[in-house]
Amino acid sequence: MRAPSFATLLAVVLPSIPAFAQAPAAAAPDLGARCRALFARALEDNRCHAILADLCATAPKRMSGSAGYATAVEWGRQQMLALGFANVRLEPCMVPHWERGAREELSIAAPGAFAGEKLAVLALGGSVATAPTGLVGRVVEFKGLGDLRENGARAKGAIAFLNQPLDPTELDTFRAYGKAVGQRWAGASEAARVGAIAVLVRSLTLRLDDHPHTGSMGYADGVPQIPAAAISTRAAERLSALLAAGHAVELKLALHCRTLPDEPSFNVVGELVGTAKPDEILVVGGHLDAWDAGDGAHDDGAGCAQALESLRLIRALGYGPRRTLRCVLFANEEFGTRGGNAYAATHADELAKHVLALESDRGGFLPRGFEGTLNDAARARLAPLYEALAFAGIAHWEPGNGGVDIGPMKGAGVPLVGLVPDSQRYFDVHHAASDVIENVHPRELALGAAAMAALLHYVDGLEGTLR
Amino acid sequence: MRAPSFATLLAVVLPSIPAFAQAPAAAAPDLGARCRALFARALEDNRCHAILADLCATAPKRMSGSAGYATAVEWGRQQMLALGFANVRLEPCMVPHWERGAREELSIAAPGAFAGEKLAVLALGGSVATAPTGLVGRVVEFKGLGDLRENGARAKGAIAFLNQPLDPTELDTFRAYGKAVGQRWAGASEAARVGAIAVLVRSLTLRLDDHPHTGSMGYADGVPQIPAAAISTRAAERLSALLAAGHAVELKLALHCRTLPDEPSFNVVGELVGTAKPDEILVVGGHLDAWDAGDGAHDDGAGCAQALESLRLIRALGYGPRRTLRCVLFANEEFGTRGGNAYAATHADELAKHVLALESDRGGFLPRGFEGTLNDAARARLAPLYEALAFAGIAHWEPGNGGVDIGPMKGAGVPLVGLVPDSQRYFDVHHAASDVIENVHPRELALGAAAMAALLHYVDGLEGTLR
Repeated sequence: MRAPSFATLLAVVLPSIPAFAQAPAAAAPDLGARCRALFARALEDNRCHAILADLCATAPKRMSGSAGYATAVEWGRQQMLALGFANVRLEPCMVPHWERGAREELSIAAPGAFAGEKLAVLALGGSVATAPTGLVGRVVEFKGLGDLRENGARAKGAIAFLNQPLDPTELDTFRAYGKAVGQRWAGASEAARVGAIAVLVRSLTLRLDDHPHTGSMGYADGVPQIPAAAISTRAAERLSALLAAGHAVELKLALHCRTLPDEPSFNVVGELVGTAKPDEILVVGGHLDAWDAGDGAHDDGAGCAQALESLRLIRALGYGPRRTLRCVLFANEEFGTRGGNAYAATHADELAKHVLALESDRGGFLPRGFEGTLNDAARARLAPLYEALAFAGIAHWEPGNGGVDIGPMKGAGVPLVGLVPDSQRYFDVHHAASDVIENVHPRELALGAAAMAALLHYVDGLEGTLR
Repeated sequence: MRAPSFATLLAVVLPSIPAFAQAPAAAAPDLGARCRALFARALEDNRCHAILADLCATAPKRMSGSAGYATAVEWGRQQMLALGFANVRLEPCMVPHWERGAREELSIAAPGAFAGEKLAVLALGGSVATAPTGLVGRVVEFKGLGDLRENGARAKGAIAFLNQPLDPTELDTFRAYGKAVGQRWAGASEAARVGAIAVLVRSLTLRLDDHPHTGSMGYADGVPQIPAAAISTRAAERLSALLAAGHAVELKLALHCRTLPDEPSFNVVGELVGTAKPDEILVVGGHLDAWDAGDGAHDDGAGCAQALESLRLIRALGYGPRRTLRCVLFANEEFGTRGGNAYAATHADELAKHVLALESDRGGFLPRGFEGTLNDAARARLAPLYEALAFAGIAHWEPGNGGVDIGPMKGAGVPLVGLVPDSQRYFDVHHAASDVIENVHPRELALGAAAMAALLHYVDGLEGTLR
């Protein structure tokens, strides 16, 4: 598919054009071949999808503090043992424990013409319950948090309905999510400030469908705690249309969730011990907890499977490692980052020897590149890898925060990097019942694992570090 | 997401690294903004998916020569009129007419322990039928065409089963397809040469599922014409396992297809007439015919919808055109390229004035770039566009043939370009029952249309041509 003459011509004429960034002289002689071998092996073995399918079958529901999470921990430990990792262990941390309880219900109470019509709903993580029999209230719609803050008086005694859609013009759907997620996180307390009795939030997805998308929320100090739930985008459109038609809509909402005392829990850790510099460490991980609407296949079963698979690939191809590659399946990303905090605290004395921390937590979709905290000099050292991975369409190398679970290592100067898959499909399934193994493409997942393996292998082989 | 200091640094240090190919000075001042506007508009309006959904609802079955294809032609004409295209017309061509007839059947006849077990099957396009009651024969497996050519004597009097899987290690799935498609196209005649009574071909997909994938086949002159059908990958694995276990498997196969006389048919053509150079033409198109297993949503309803949408976007944003943009929905790509040949013949006198022909026929997936026949000088002229589209992850600009329908214009020196979406998912649905609108992602489809609009707009604005 590639014609050297074309590339060569433009490498001279237009040195900054992406497709022609093939200056073989600059790359280590066989790095490209080693990267291609990692990708070919990942695609041929198709192990990453099998690992993920096993997790989704064994521990489909694994919210922090739940029995399902404990099952997932044991699954992770067994996976690492089966893969031949060394020093497999559970590292303790305390995690929050919020339970959904019985299935939520939301229906139209009035006007009578629509009474009994059900709307798809899920409590937000951290919400308080309604009374067991539910609450009934008039609905008042707001375009989002800003609208609520400006015109909130209307919501007094009512159910506030925050209906800000994701901005479809954002090419990067994480940007669209970032612009709208405030209504989910802070909506309850903002609505309570003006006297609302509950809050309903439009699901944070670009699809128009029947899946409510849950996620974490928090209560501000000194404000009454009111029930908070997500409704599907179709339910939001339905509600909005009824209100726009002038109906005085009353809803009945019943949430049965509760917050229990914190629970002891674990990060799952295992290693390939380095042959040359075993005390220098590269961490690779994802988070093992997941919301309970689906099976957490993309968020973040995919990241866990890719972390495991990336080490399997490196060993399968005999690529060392020279340093110790440490796989960490983190606890409680979704609801407090306790696993990430515990890892950084437990290994505080060792962080100076951490060469890299790599996380995958943006779904198991087609990999486009990486984002991270690397400084300019460190980025320059990755240049041969940029070229070596161009064949796989890995062309996005940008600044970013790396990931939530590895974030607590930032203060210690650990270089943090996150895998960046294409974002178009992520919020279709994020925190929803559609986040199941059937919606994970085996080859896209495998390509992400291969890209991670390539990055780990390359950094493992560098003299010096990326600090 | 992008940090200028990072990009600037590496633009100096490492001028050939993809992610840092942002040298604004080289680009026309506002080309980037215009490209971003096309993408934002495509995502916001979400029209491309609506167009495609309408096609799939109106003319889901549209094989060459069928009544469904005639319905699709009228659909295309009405779409163009509704979009305000000028010179909307049907351009005639004769097309082959092959009918599937009643649903095919394939089942195990012996050994008795498995008798009656059904295997998923579809006749290949162009195949002859079996006797109405079917045929029964012993099955002999071959690893592919090469194995059949070397060891074909075993197939005498039997059903030859060609079981070459797609090579999973090929990152570009079109390459994997290209390596295996010979068994589908030529398998029948190769098997007939050694006395086989029918041929079954493993479906050309990387998925293990129950969908047979059909496609075209041909008979060599002077060789008996035997029935030819595709079986699903799961059926292929099942059959192979039974044979490997030592069973003498007999199958019953019934195909009811037939070839009828050629039918008069049409390409559908409409235009945005250029304001400055109306006699200079840029063609954009896809093919309107499709295999009948699914709805041809990706192959190639997507390309038709994107061609229509790309012109709509250009006009919606007031981007001229200076030259005439001509949308062509081609007849009969799947089974003879009669539409493409007719276009080139009908417009032979005009081809010298064709500045570009652009086709989308690789599915409505995430766009990665373009491939085409442009010479080096022409490619160099596209450099500002490479930079302007980098924001959208459009980084693949490579030599290629452009597309089947526009291929007949190559001899006249028309520069040919094809949209290149990511290939990972294409053969999951290609020519199978799973090629339906539900498997088309609205935003991925829209991004492809926007990329096409950007290319058309840029080339329209060039002084001189790309020849």
